[in-house]
Amino acid sequence: MRTPATQFLSALQSHLSVSPNNHTPTTMKLLYPTSLALDISSIEGFPTLTLHPYDVKTPIPEDLIDAEILITWTNSASNLKDAAGRMKNLRWIQSLAAGPNDVINAGFDTSRIAVTTGSGLHDRTVAEHALGLLLNACRRFYEMRDYQLQGKWPGHLGGPQPDRPAGSFTTLRDARVLIWGFGNIAKSLAPHLVALGSTVRGVARRQGVRDGIEVYGEDKLPELLPQTDALVMILPGDPSTKHALNAARLALMPKHAWIVNVGRGTSVDEDALFNALTEGTIGGAALDVFEVEPLPRESKLWKAPNCIVSPHAAGGRPQGSEALIVDNLRRFLAGQQLRNAI
Amino acid sequence: MRTPATQFLSALQSHLSVSPNNHTPTTMKLLYPTSLALDISSIEGFPTLTLHPYDVKTPIPEDLIDAEILITWTNSASNLKDAAGRMKNLRWIQSLAAGPNDVINAGFDTSRIAVTTGSGLHDRTVAEHALGLLLNACRRFYEMRDYQLQGKWPGHLGGPQPDRPAGSFTTLRDARVLIWGFGNIAKSLAPHLVALGSTVRGVARRQGVRDGIEVYGEDKLPELLPQTDALVMILPGDPSTKHALNAARLALMPKHAWIVNVGRGTSVDEDALFNALTEGTIGGAALDVFEVEPLPRESKLWKAPNCIVSPHAAGGRPQGSEALIVDNLRRFLAGQQLRNAI
Ligand SMILES: NC(=O)c1ccc[n+]([C@@H]2O[C@H](COP(=O)([O-])OP(=O)(O)OC[C@H]3O[C@@H](n4cnc5c(N)ncnc54)[C@H](OP(=O)(O)O)[C@@H]3O)[C@@H](O)[C@H]2O)c1
Ligand SMILES: NC(=O)c1ccc[n+]([C@@H]2O[C@H](COP(=O)([O-])OP(=O)(O)OC[C@H]3O[C@@H](n4cnc5c(N)ncnc54)[C@H](OP(=O)(O)O)[C@@H]3O)[C@@H](O)[C@H]2O)c1
Repeated sequence: MRTPATQFLSALQSHLSVSPNNHTPTTMKLLYPTSLALDISSIEGFPTLTLHPYDVKTPIPEDLIDAEILITWTNSASNLKDAAGRMKNLRWIQSLAAGPNDVINAGFDTSRIAVTTGSGLHDRTVAEHALGLLLNACRRFYEMRDYQLQGKWPGHLGGPQPDRPAGSFTTLRDARVLIWGFGNIAKSLAPHLVALGSTVRGVARRQGVRDGIEVYGEDKLPELLPQTDALVMILPGDPSTKHALNAARLALMPKHAWIVNVGRGTSVDEDALFNALTEGTIGGAALDVFEVEPLPRESKLWKAPNCIVSPHAAGGRPQGSEALIVDNLRRFLAGQQLRNAI
Repeated sequence: MRTPATQFLSALQSHLSVSPNNHTPTTMKLLYPTSLALDISSIEGFPTLTLHPYDVKTPIPEDLIDAEILITWTNSASNLKDAAGRMKNLRWIQSLAAGPNDVINAGFDTSRIAVTTGSGLHDRTVAEHALGLLLNACRRFYEMRDYQLQGKWPGHLGGPQPDRPAGSFTTLRDARVLIWGFGNIAKSLAPHLVALGSTVRGVARRQGVRDGIEVYGEDKLPELLPQTDALVMILPGDPSTKHALNAARLALMPKHAWIVNVGRGTSVDEDALFNALTEGTIGGAALDVFEVEPLPRESKLWKAPNCIVSPHAAGGRPQGSEALIVDNLRRFLAGQQLRNAI
C-alpha cells in the first residue's frame, strides 16, 4: 500500500502551484474533523489550500465531497464507508490514530489515495498509562482497592516487606521488563522504566540497539520470555500479530510474571491468558485492549484472578496533531514522501 | 538530642584501638536485627568489632546486653523499652527506618546514646509508590476497578478523550505538582515527574533551589495551593507537622486537585479531608499513611468518594542498609560526626 514519492509527483501535476504560463494555481480542500480541538490557525498559510470542518459521524456534505485531503479522528464506520464511495478527488487521508484500522477497512482505493497514520501522537499518553498499569501490578493497587471496598486493611501488602524477593514482581527496580513491539510508544516508555531501575529489553521485527535498548527478533522469545518479570505488549493489530502471545509462549514465562497490553487486543489469545491466570502459571495481566471492545459482559476476564481491565484508556488524546498535519501538508504539496505512510 | 563529635571522642577513649602502651584494643559488640536480610559480610572488617544477630521481638539475651551498638528494624515496643532499661553500655542506635519514632519513644538516654535514622534507604521505594498513587489518581485505575468488579465497562474513562481539559487532573503531563516536605524521598521522586512532563515545585523549611526544583517556605502556601493539581505530602511525623494540611489550606486548592500522602498520617487533618472529599471541594486523596494505623474499621475514609487507601506500603524495604551502617561504623570508630544523626 506504500505510495512512492514518484507516484505522487505525477499524480499532483495537475494541482501543483504556478504553471510555466503563469496560470492561477488550482486550490484544494482539506477537511478537518470537529471530533477534537485542533488549532486551525497552526495549519493555515498554504495559499492553495482551503480548510473546512466536518462532522465525523454523518456523511460528508455535498459541497465538501470534492475535497482532496481528509483528516480523520474517531470517524464512524458509516461516515468512512460513505466517503470511500463518494469522494472521487480524494488523494490523501491523514488519520490521527496510531493504528488506522478503521480507514483501512472502509474500502478506500489505496492505489490512488495515500494513507498516513498518527503514530507518534500517542507516545506519551500511552507510555504514561502503561507505566501506571505496571505500577498498579507490582504495587498491587487493584488488590488494595478490593480490600478497601470491604473496609479491610490488607496488612500483608504493607508494613515491613521482603526486599525484591526472588520469584515475585513487587517493584520496577531491578525488574526485567520486555517490551514486545518496540516502536514509537516503546521508545517513550523505556526511559521511565530505566530511570526506575528496570532492566529493559525489546522485541520487534528488526533486531538491533534502539535508543540504547537491545531489541531482539521474535526468534529470541524462547530465551527472553523465561527471563521476564513483566511483558509489555505494544504490537499493532494486523494479521501478523494475531495471537502473538499464545499458550505456548505464556508457558515459557515465570509464574510470577505479568502481562501488560496497551497495543491491540488481537495480539493476545485471551482464552490461553485466562487459563494461565486461573491456573496461576502467570502472575497477572493488566489489559487496556481486548479482542472485542467493549469487553463483552460474558468475558471470563472480568473476574479472572489478578486481571486488571482498563477500558482502552491509554491513548485517545492525540498530542501535536497540527505539527504532523503541517509537515505532511508541506511534503504533499512538494510531492515528497509522506511521514507515517502505511 | 544531637551528640557532638567531641563528646564521642572522649566517650570512646576507653574503647578506641591501640593505646600508647600497646595494650590489646578493647572489642565492641554490634547487634544486628534478623528482621531483614542483611549481607553481614559487607559489614565485617573492623577488627575491634564483633557482630551478633538478635531477635527484634523478644528481650535482648543476657550475653548480648553489654553491646555498644544496636541496629534496629521493626523492633517491638517491648523489645526497645527493655533494651532502653538494660543496655548500660549502649552508645549508638542505628535505626533503618526513615522516621525512627519507635526508638525516640522507647526512653533511651539520648544524652549518652547517639541515634541515627535510615533516611535515604527508602527514597526509591517510597518515590515509586508515590508515582504509582499519582498515576492511579489521574488515570483513575481505582474507579476502573470498581466498574470491573461489577462486570461493567466504564466507557467514559476510555476511548477518545479531551486533551488535558482545564479543571481536571487526567495526566501527569503539564500537571502542576507540589511536593510538601522536599527531602530525600522528594528528590528521588521529582525527576520522574519532570520526565513525565509535570511542573514540579517544593515546600520545605528552608527555601531555595534544590536539584533544579524551586523549593518555597510554608509562607508561600497561600499562593501555591491554588495553583496545584496534585499535592504530594512527604512530611515527617513530628509535632511541627501536625495537621499541616487543615481545612483552611484544603479550601485554597482547586476543586479537581488531588492529595497524595506518603509521609506521616498526622500531617493531614483527616476530618477536614473527609469533608472536602464529601463536599467535592477537592478532587481526591491517595493515602498511604493515616493518623491511626491500621486505619480503624470505623474510619469514614474507607468509603469517602475518590479516596484511595494504601496500607502503609510505600517503604518497608530499606535499600543499601549495609553501606550506611559501614559508613557510620567508620565514623563512629573515628570519633566523627555520624550521618543521619537526629
Ligand atoms: N491502547 C491505546 O489507547 C492505544 C493508543 C495508541 C496506539 N495503540 C496501539 O499501539 C500500537 C503501536 O503503536 P506505535 O505508535 O508504537 O507503533 P509503531 O511505532 O509502528 O511500532 C510498532 C512496533 O511493533 C513492531 N511489530 C509490528 N509487527 C510486528 C510483528 N509481527 N512482530 C513483532 N513486532 C512487530 C514493529 O517492529 P519494527 O520496529 O521492527 O517494524 C514496531 O517496533 C498501534 O498500532 C496501536 O494499535 C494503542
Ligand atoms: N509511607 C512510607 O512507607 C514511608 C517510608 C519512609 C519514610 N516515610 C516518611 O517520609 C518522611 C520523609 O522522609 P525523607 O527521608 O524524605 O525525610 P527528610 O529527607 O528528612 O525530608 C523531610 C522534609 O520535610 C521537611 N520538613 C520537616 N518539617 C517540616 C515542617 N514543619 N514544615 C515544612 N517542611 C518540613 C524538611 O524540610 P528541610 O529540608 O527544609 O529541613 C525536608 O524537606 C519520613 O519522616 C517518614 O515519616 C514514609
